[in-house]
Amino acid sequence: MRATVMYGAGDVRIEQVPDSTIKHPTDALVRVVSACICGSDLWPYASRTAEDAPFRAGHEFLGIVEDAGSEVTTVKKGDLVVAPFAVSDGTCEYCRDGLQTSCNHPEAAFWDGMEDEGGQAEAVRVPLADGTLVKLPVAPDSALLPHLLTLTDVLGTGHHAVSIAGVSPRTSVTVIGDGAVGLLAVLAAKRLGAEQIILMGRHQARTDLGREFGATDVVAGRGDEGIEAVRELTGGQGTHVVVEAVGARPAYDQALGTVRAGGIISRVGVPQYEEAPVGWTSLFARNIRLAGGPAPVRAFMEELMPEILDGTIQPGKVFDRVTDLDGVPDGYRAMADRTSLKVHIKP
Amino acid sequence: MRATVMYGAGDVRIEQVPDSTIKHPTDALVRVVSACICGSDLWPYASRTAEDAPFRAGHEFLGIVEDAGSEVTTVKKGDLVVAPFAVSDGTCEYCRDGLQTSCNHPEAAFWDGMEDEGGQAEAVRVPLADGTLVKLPVAPDSALLPHLLTLTDVLGTGHHAVSIAGVSPRTSVTVIGDGAVGLLAVLAAKRLGAEQIILMGRHQARTDLGREFGATDVVAGRGDEGIEAVRELTGGQGTHVVVEAVGARPAYDQALGTVRAGGIISRVGVPQYEEAPVGWTSLFARNIRLAGGPAPVRAFMEELMPEILDGTIQPGKVFDRVTDLDGVPDGYRAMADRTSLKVHIKP
Repeated sequence: MRATVMYGAGDVRIEQVPDSTIKHPTDALVRVVSACICGSDLWPYASRTAEDAPFRAGHEFLGIVEDAGSEVTTVKKGDLVVAPFAVSDGTCEYCRDGLQTSCNHPEAAFWDGMEDEGGQAEAVRVPLADGTLVKLPVAPDSALLPHLLTLTDVLGTGHHAVSIAGVSPRTSVTVIGDGAVGLLAVLAAKRLGAEQIILMGRHQARTDLGREFGATDVVAGRGDEGIEAVRELTGGQGTHVVVEAVGARPAYDQALGTVRAGGIISRVGVPQYEEAPVGWTSLFARNIRLAGGPAPVRAFMEELMPEILDGTIQPGKVFDRVTDLDGVPDGYRAMADRTSLKVHIKP
Repeated sequence: MRATVMYGAGDVRIEQVPDSTIKHPTDALVRVVSACICGSDLWPYASRTAEDAPFRAGHEFLGIVEDAGSEVTTVKKGDLVVAPFAVSDGTCEYCRDGLQTSCNHPEAAFWDGMEDEGGQAEAVRVPLADGTLVKLPVAPDSALLPHLLTLTDVLGTGHHAVSIAGVSPRTSVTVIGDGAVGLLAVLAAKRLGAEQIILMGRHQARTDLGREFGATDVVAGRGDEGIEAVRELTGGQGTHVVVEAVGARPAYDQALGTVRAGGIISRVGVPQYEEAPVGWTSLFARNIRLAGGPAPVRAFMEELMPEILDGTIQPGKVFDRVTDLDGVPDGYRAMADRTSLKVHIKP
């Protein structure tokens, strides 16, 4: 079968690899119908070296069950299913608490942490299929597929960002970053009733989509200029919630500048730094809270899916480019150049 | 009048200073009946240099109103009153939200930030008396005074630590630090129903009091040894909540090691560091949240006081030494040497 393999920085290749097959009785084999490229794929794409071992890319996909192990009970051959970006058993204490990204089953893992499986491919072996996969009640040619595909990561991640921050009609929200996660954090904040949603981004096609998703204000400025603009929009106070959907250290500093005393910085961009200010002058004196991490998107699928099925939300609007597997390397380049917001792959 | 003045490290003096007087119509003048020395006073006591300007020490006191400005309506001459460690107007948007430590009135301040007023003194001018002071329904010679004195800071701070972390019967708690705040965080966690409360401390008289306040386990080990011990007590997972009641960087690292995935580190020790790890390996991968800051103790007085008045809680047990003003320098030495847990001052 064919799959996407990432080598050094900027070097993504479509290669012939051994067919994925069932290995354990709890596995399912899924023929990929739709996958995508994630903003977080761009971090290794930018930073890997020639010494890094190649890895199979892609953690967002949906597809048709082609085979299921003898212990799989919730999905069967022929089902259209969606996978979250992390494999989980659905039964451990963390899964029961809704934190599937910390599932403590030995086979639990992020797709990005697996050497020999990835979603940007023709097929994927899905471990712990009962805990991981969710059946989709539509046909494989449904026009809803791009929207449902966002359940794998970006929609659930946007929802995680705002739900852990307690967004409600009483909270104002700033979203830093106009990538797919930032835009879907806007959609998710709107969905939870936030009345003021300030989107910080400078790419107009994206911020226009942000307005469509519910942003009430757009701030193009960065750094001190951007902070000043947000403060002007909020009576000098900043917002109750700041979603940091970038992961770069300057975005963290921007969050410190735009959050209200007593507020919360909710990070869903994977931090590209380890140390950052958390002391008296940054977080402590003003009782600023810090939250976030890999979204347990599996926990949100049942809640979010009905609103996609009935058309209430259309998160798939973040896709602005479609390709087959051969076009994946170009898709990476387009997203890295910011000429594409998010690439939909139909293998 | 006489007051405590802090000079360089280890240099605390009792000096004759100008009498405190009413300056604004919203002021009250309070004759101090009881004050105390705070663990946080020990940070400047340890680190000040001879070049630092002397400052008037003490942010915890209760006393009798001696005079009140013309606009003060909630307290009057002769009332016994308690003051939180921060002055606030009680009416701004932050005060209404219960975050009095971020009050945006121009006169709002922490006592520690005022040059010419401090609680370890014979009297104090209290700005914004209506928002700041709370009347105590007991006589000035009541045996409850030491307990009520903890409303000024340490009890409210312990309560803040656990309440912002959502402590409930469903959460396990680790408390790092056996100072007064740590011990009262134990009491506060017990009060909110936590069933497992692990106290990390190595001073047996203190940890014994911690057990009396509700600690179910005591871990004397520090660093990796202490982390390992907490993990053993929690099935290898750590606790849902870790209260960091020290403020030193090693205590932060200990918190990272003892918190459960999806859990929260609640800091109420004033951080003596600005940068710390917050990236993938420390907070992000496991969705660890960070919270805390100066406790808005004013917000908690009405809730906590009745349980002191009816004897349900006895937080004043943290006082193990009583002195007059002349004994304050010795009291600082005793707390710095850890021969005293907390010093009660009767000017």
